[in-house]
Amino acid sequence: MSITQNLTTSISSSSSSFLAPSSFNSRRQNVSLPAKRVGVCKCVATPQEQEVQTAYKTKVSRNANIAKLQAGYLFPEIARRRSAHLLKYPDAKVISLGIGDTTEPIPEVITSAMAKKAHALSTIEGYSGYGAEQGEKPLRSAIASTFYSHLDIEVDDIFVSDGAKCDISRLQMVFGSNVKMAVQDPSYPAYVDSSVIMGQTGPYQKDVEKYGNIEYMRCNPENGFFPDLSAISRPDVIFFCSPNNPTGAAATREQLIQLVQYAQDNGSIIVYDSAYAMYISGDNPRSIYEIPGAKEVAIETSSFSKYAGFTGVRLGWTVVPKQLLYSDGFPVAKDFNRIVCTSFNGSSNISQAGGLACLSPEGLQAMQEVIGFYKENTNIIVDTFESLGFKVYGGKNAPYVWVHFPGRSSWDVFSEILEKTHVVTTPGSGFGPGGEGFVRVSAFGHRENILEACRRFKQLYK
Amino acid sequence: MSITQNLTTSISSSSSSFLAPSSFNSRRQNVSLPAKRVGVCKCVATPQEQEVQTAYKTKVSRNANIAKLQAGYLFPEIARRRSAHLLKYPDAKVISLGIGDTTEPIPEVITSAMAKKAHALSTIEGYSGYGAEQGEKPLRSAIASTFYSHLDIEVDDIFVSDGAKCDISRLQMVFGSNVKMAVQDPSYPAYVDSSVIMGQTGPYQKDVEKYGNIEYMRCNPENGFFPDLSAISRPDVIFFCSPNNPTGAAATREQLIQLVQYAQDNGSIIVYDSAYAMYISGDNPRSIYEIPGAKEVAIETSSFSKYAGFTGVRLGWTVVPKQLLYSDGFPVAKDFNRIVCTSFNGSSNISQAGGLACLSPEGLQAMQEVIGFYKENTNIIVDTFESLGFKVYGGKNAPYVWVHFPGRSSWDVFSEILEKTHVVTTPGSGFGPGGEGFVRVSAFGHRENILEACRRFKQLYK
Repeated sequence: MSITQNLTTSISSSSSSFLAPSSFNSRRQNVSLPAKRVGVCKCVATPQEQEVQTAYKTKVSRNANIAKLQAGYLFPEIARRRSAHLLKYPDAKVISLGIGDTTEPIPEVITSAMAKKAHALSTIEGYSGYGAEQGEKPLRSAIASTFYSHLDIEVDDIFVSDGAKCDISRLQMVFGSNVKMAVQDPSYPAYVDSSVIMGQTGPYQKDVEKYGNIEYMRCNPENGFFPDLSAISRPDVIFFCSPNNPTGAAATREQLIQLVQYAQDNGSIIVYDSAYAMYISGDNPRSIYEIPGAKEVAIETSSFSKYAGFTGVRLGWTVVPKQLLYSDGFPVAKDFNRIVCTSFNGSSNISQAGGLACLSPEGLQAMQEVIGFYKENTNIIVDTFESLGFKVYGGKNAPYVWVHFPGRSSWDVFSEILEKTHVVTTPGSGFGPGGEGFVRVSAFGHRENILEACRRFKQLYK
Repeated sequence: MSITQNLTTSISSSSSSFLAPSSFNSRRQNVSLPAKRVGVCKCVATPQEQEVQTAYKTKVSRNANIAKLQAGYLFPEIARRRSAHLLKYPDAKVISLGIGDTTEPIPEVITSAMAKKAHALSTIEGYSGYGAEQGEKPLRSAIASTFYSHLDIEVDDIFVSDGAKCDISRLQMVFGSNVKMAVQDPSYPAYVDSSVIMGQTGPYQKDVEKYGNIEYMRCNPENGFFPDLSAISRPDVIFFCSPNNPTGAAATREQLIQLVQYAQDNGSIIVYDSAYAMYISGDNPRSIYEIPGAKEVAIETSSFSKYAGFTGVRLGWTVVPKQLLYSDGFPVAKDFNRIVCTSFNGSSNISQAGGLACLSPEGLQAMQEVIGFYKENTNIIVDTFESLGFKVYGGKNAPYVWVHFPGRSSWDVFSEILEKTHVVTTPGSGFGPGGEGFVRVSAFGHRENILEACRRFKQLYK
């Protein structure tokens, strides 16, 4: 993509336009940022700032929940800053270790299956139209037997989707506006943003950098990245990601037993995001359903994105066990199914053919190799920062390295690294106030880029 | 798919489970139905009906908005009845003219492009990960130049999606719960159902077969399938589908001028569903933006599903012009972009490669041929019912034939046709109370099936 294309795309996105006056049109300012609280950016345009002043306006009021959202969604915002940096340094060889985007080719056994399915669609026998909204039966079966064998998850508990991020929003639609949620702090921003959009939260509180009516469960080195559950007030829904994005921490069996016990005691529902489970090296659980009793309190969402390089192909799944019941005894799965049938029409049949190939013996082997490659990248990054004297977390069970810059603003560090090394990372505070002082370095990249980025880090921080 | 598979899928869906006690487990009842108000089915299971009585329940309350929904989403419900019919008549050659699912192979020029993209994903140069959430620039450009040339719609007004149905829900998320909507009655059920889910409506009112706080704009032969806009109280959002699903009526230029004028006068936003625009034979507008002033009041959503047989491939788009403003002057497009970035991650890159091929000169030609084929089917169905003395609507500008059975329950007619001819249609009342007395016959089918279905119709109604 050329720079110009990048920019046009950027300009068309709300996040970028929001920020245009403060940092996009001004070459002087560019990627340098106010010192504090910048993950947040007070940049939702107010009506007066709009260019169109005398234009016709409808009489429809803007959705007040969306108006609560701060700045743009994190990753488009980072893409925008990357583009701005390229404008400033057109010849820079920018390396992106920011948004966690896979870079390695999809194994041929998988792409061949997708190509074959595509070709079949132009034959009478091979053509298929609408599939089941819940996904094709063979794929649901393969997911059940690959990831949930002996865990008593049934095929019809599994809903195939176009990705975990999309399912998170659909789950929020299921829960509606009258639930109170808890999230790990820091955490993947889609949990909080989708909660705000659904109207579950109060306004954003600038002083604490949190939305009202969300329990932010601090996860930091001091507590081993597992929250003090006794310190939170009862949430209806607990979003919990393990291995965690961004910290890279994988919860232990003991921790997950504690989590499930908390949910049982408090009647909460866990939404367990296991999108990085295949990166686990140790014996940490790969599914929440390894914990006894989890089926009665937990939903699990996962994805092919980081296993098979399907970030662009789009395929994931969500498990909603039929044993999970609302307080009136109504199964959550029935409402999720209703949302899936009303708001979604199934994943692309070509992507599903790819998913099925992923779960063949050859596909699994090939995925393991790609994951192994990224894990080697992770080791290189961990070694680099450790050799420079940084405290580094994550990495072992996840493709993310969580580097501590004690006492510094993570947006400042992000800008420093970008400005001085042309490497894009992700500022920890973009994942919540608990991420302040950290930067997430993604291990998704070609080997030569990882090595080059690490050389530059060594130059900068030697 | 085998019958057993069909059933398993069915059983796993909430709609079917909802209905299980009344019509699924009982062979006697099967597809026969209570005489009236059956599009509605009083079959949302109450807690007492749940099988799991003594099981653990969470303390999370069920979303009251979802609880308002009546029965299952229409099309899974029809699929369920089809499966039940197959159980009763295992040897029947069932012909499906129900859910409007495309049946003809996708032209080779399009599938080749998708296969090529799939293969490219296993090369270093051809691999791509996350794309822009709004879609790839070349596809957005091609949509703009193909469908909106000279209509002053810009590339960044176009958001590529995984289908119009999915975008309808995303649009409802944008609007939130405090808007009042209007729909054509009858209409595609996703408009109303997504409104209920978002909490825009009151409870379902059994006596009138409508949800509270929705304006149902009756469209019938008497008003030429265009609503009397002077009879409705001001809605914030007007869902308007033309060519219409299910009636097949395409609004005239004069009617659309009236609609846009109404929106301007009342400050309403039109969501214009043009998913069947390429089926228009006459000079009816193919886009709402052909009407002067529409950009300030209208969103348009459309799809490759019925043009290229992409019902399973999943690709559509939505146009949100930057000129469309909320009452406070904030652009709707910025909030839609935010939802797209938070709740979606772009359409599959393979599907997008297919979309780009659709809009090449060869692709457009090939799509026109497929559409032409379905339009011939439509003529055969129209001729059949007219020869039997029925009043028939639609068909000319849409792949749907809207057959009038005056004074009869459309679910009764649906069951009669299924029972006696093994042909699946769609009961008009499934699209709203205004559809009562009609049945929708879809023209999507292999030619021999259309001909065979018409032979059976002639036998039944001779």
